[in-house]
Amino acid sequence: MRIAQIAPLAEAVPPKMYGGTERVVSWLTEELVRQGHDVHLFASGDSVTTAKLCPGAPKALRLAGMHDHTPSTLVMLDEVQRRAAEFDILHFHIDVLPLPLFKHLFHKCVTTLHGRLDLPDFHPVYRAFPAMPLISISDQQRRPMPPVNWAATIHHGLPQDLYRLNKKGGDYLAFLGRISPEKRPDRAIEIAKRSGVRLKIAAKVDPVDREYFTSQIEPLLDDPLIEFIGEIDDHQKEAFLGQALALIFPIDWPEPFGLVMIESMALGTPVIAWRNGSVPEIIENGRTGLVVDSIEKAVEAVAHAKRMDRVTIRQQFDSRFTSTRMAKNYLTVYQRLLVQAEEETQTVDQFATFHLPGSSLTAPRLQSQMHKDSKLARV
Amino acid sequence: MRIAQIAPLAEAVPPKMYGGTERVVSWLTEELVRQGHDVHLFASGDSVTTAKLCPGAPKALRLAGMHDHTPSTLVMLDEVQRRAAEFDILHFHIDVLPLPLFKHLFHKCVTTLHGRLDLPDFHPVYRAFPAMPLISISDQQRRPMPPVNWAATIHHGLPQDLYRLNKKGGDYLAFLGRISPEKRPDRAIEIAKRSGVRLKIAAKVDPVDREYFTSQIEPLLDDPLIEFIGEIDDHQKEAFLGQALALIFPIDWPEPFGLVMIESMALGTPVIAWRNGSVPEIIENGRTGLVVDSIEKAVEAVAHAKRMDRVTIRQQFDSRFTSTRMAKNYLTVYQRLLVQAEEETQTVDQFATFHLPGSSLTAPRLQSQMHKDSKLARV
Repeated sequence: MRIAQIAPLAEAVPPKMYGGTERVVSWLTEELVRQGHDVHLFASGDSVTTAKLCPGAPKALRLAGMHDHTPSTLVMLDEVQRRAAEFDILHFHIDVLPLPLFKHLFHKCVTTLHGRLDLPDFHPVYRAFPAMPLISISDQQRRPMPPVNWAATIHHGLPQDLYRLNKKGGDYLAFLGRISPEKRPDRAIEIAKRSGVRLKIAAKVDPVDREYFTSQIEPLLDDPLIEFIGEIDDHQKEAFLGQALALIFPIDWPEPFGLVMIESMALGTPVIAWRNGSVPEIIENGRTGLVVDSIEKAVEAVAHAKRMDRVTIRQQFDSRFTSTRMAKNYLTVYQRLLVQAEEETQTVDQFATFHLPGSSLTAPRLQSQMHKDSKLARV
Repeated sequence: MRIAQIAPLAEAVPPKMYGGTERVVSWLTEELVRQGHDVHLFASGDSVTTAKLCPGAPKALRLAGMHDHTPSTLVMLDEVQRRAAEFDILHFHIDVLPLPLFKHLFHKCVTTLHGRLDLPDFHPVYRAFPAMPLISISDQQRRPMPPVNWAATIHHGLPQDLYRLNKKGGDYLAFLGRISPEKRPDRAIEIAKRSGVRLKIAAKVDPVDREYFTSQIEPLLDDPLIEFIGEIDDHQKEAFLGQALALIFPIDWPEPFGLVMIESMALGTPVIAWRNGSVPEIIENGRTGLVVDSIEKAVEAVAHAKRMDRVTIRQQFDSRFTSTRMAKNYLTVYQRLLVQAEEETQTVDQFATFHLPGSSLTAPRLQSQMHKDSKLARV
């Protein structure tokens, strides 16, 4: 299959540092290439891939000091549009800009929505272009959206060999990611103190969260149980997560997916997570982690986590959260779109031959047809 | 002429509060209607106009609490695109989003660039779509841009009856607008103190500038010469500017236009302004104001301003900065585009008849032709 992957230009694919979307696009792209597909990757010029790289900008915009990413993204989308006939599928990972530009090509488009969807700012444009086939990364992520053309929910996946099971684990709780109010590092600290178990915090502090860190979190760090490590890289992550007793994920926002949960599972480390957003879909309660909704339950969960079987957790990762499984799900969606477009073309061809030569009805009919079909389809 | 004006959705047209672009779009739209043109205004639904209002969103996005304006703007642009055949001219005031969407209609498009153009973030998309006819609001504004299709520089204009000449003036210096580092209220304060002349500051403080105000400006306000008034509305502006000895405009950034300078002139009040951006184009040095580049020169200018003739300043406003003059300039550009498109269609028709039936060369040839012509044209 000839597939175009269209990535954000903020970070390289894969990203040099932080960048969940670019990381997932990379894993999907590499897996599709490995399976023999002809993949073009539209991304920043400093991306590294075994697909054919089509640079949308010379280098990742954030590292280049660009604050407004829309202008360069428009240039990249124009290039995708001009080359659209070269591809069977155009797979976008950049939210709303493609909607008006590709409205006549929705029959071969897929958009994965990587972010939270509860901000009303975005709803008007999804309402105006309901025919774009959309992928949610958890079922919960869909809840606030107006009626649109959901093609499937596809959970993210990691390359199976990215992390190896750590059978032994360790004796501390791990908090990994960003320091910000919605990630609730304060809850993690309270759980550790009440459990009497050590907590290691490996997290970056963005400028926007500096004030929160200084005023709310730093005063809580002065305790022999709590260790603040700062930002760590991908390499350090394996030891940090693998040698933990459990990952603490005490979020207070509708997390659309939460990659760190499946990274933890890949290493065999159970996840103690607040019931929010994707959490109940990712964690099998009692098997790969514990879903809680209070500090008390979380403290109980710490005791429980010590007894959980790390081999089982890794097995669940292998069966549910590899990039091979993710790519397989996407290929099912791509294939279904191709079949639908084919069928629709045949129907319209017949119709046109007998009734309406030169009719321009194809595109709108195709879209409304897809819209109906897709409500039934689930991967 | 059938004209579509496409405004930003951030504020209503005209804006309820702050909003330079929406104010100018309103003045241009109302003047075009007054002159008998058939004008449609694409803007937020709470806009007020004598043109036909086409709501791009139910109400102004900033007041509706929307932070990301791109989604709603895409919906509005799709509506403009669907209705494009109804108009002779599509006049955009919203920067870059129309570029890829209207590339096949550039022969009847005009974009006025209302902001600073020195941010590299935007250059890739202007470089990718060099055929869009662009209007600069000062010649200086163009300097940082890559080669594009400049159709004209058109200075902004106000309705002639918006403000009446205040023949008497007053005895204080006026600073009007926003408190921010690039507006240099600190310079205004120093000039007042060194001149021994009172300064009234009527300015809003945006959240992003709160820290600057508290740490840098507030400590300077404790002086009997300095009075900080806060934000004022349009009605209060007439007395505030009209009863001043001079407007102080000590900017430290490439101001693309600076509406407050011509508001001041309309009231007969001279402008003392730093040599930056549009300033030397707007101010006739020694006649409508004084262009300076140091505190010393500004202090001398205060003494000079007392002797300037307020009637002459108003006359210069009448001849150079009314919305009637602005609309006339825009109509010249619209007319030129229509003639060019007409001529080009005829040329291509002839060409097509004799050589290439069914040729699809029209759009690119038209664009390159316009690009060449426009380099010669000035309004």
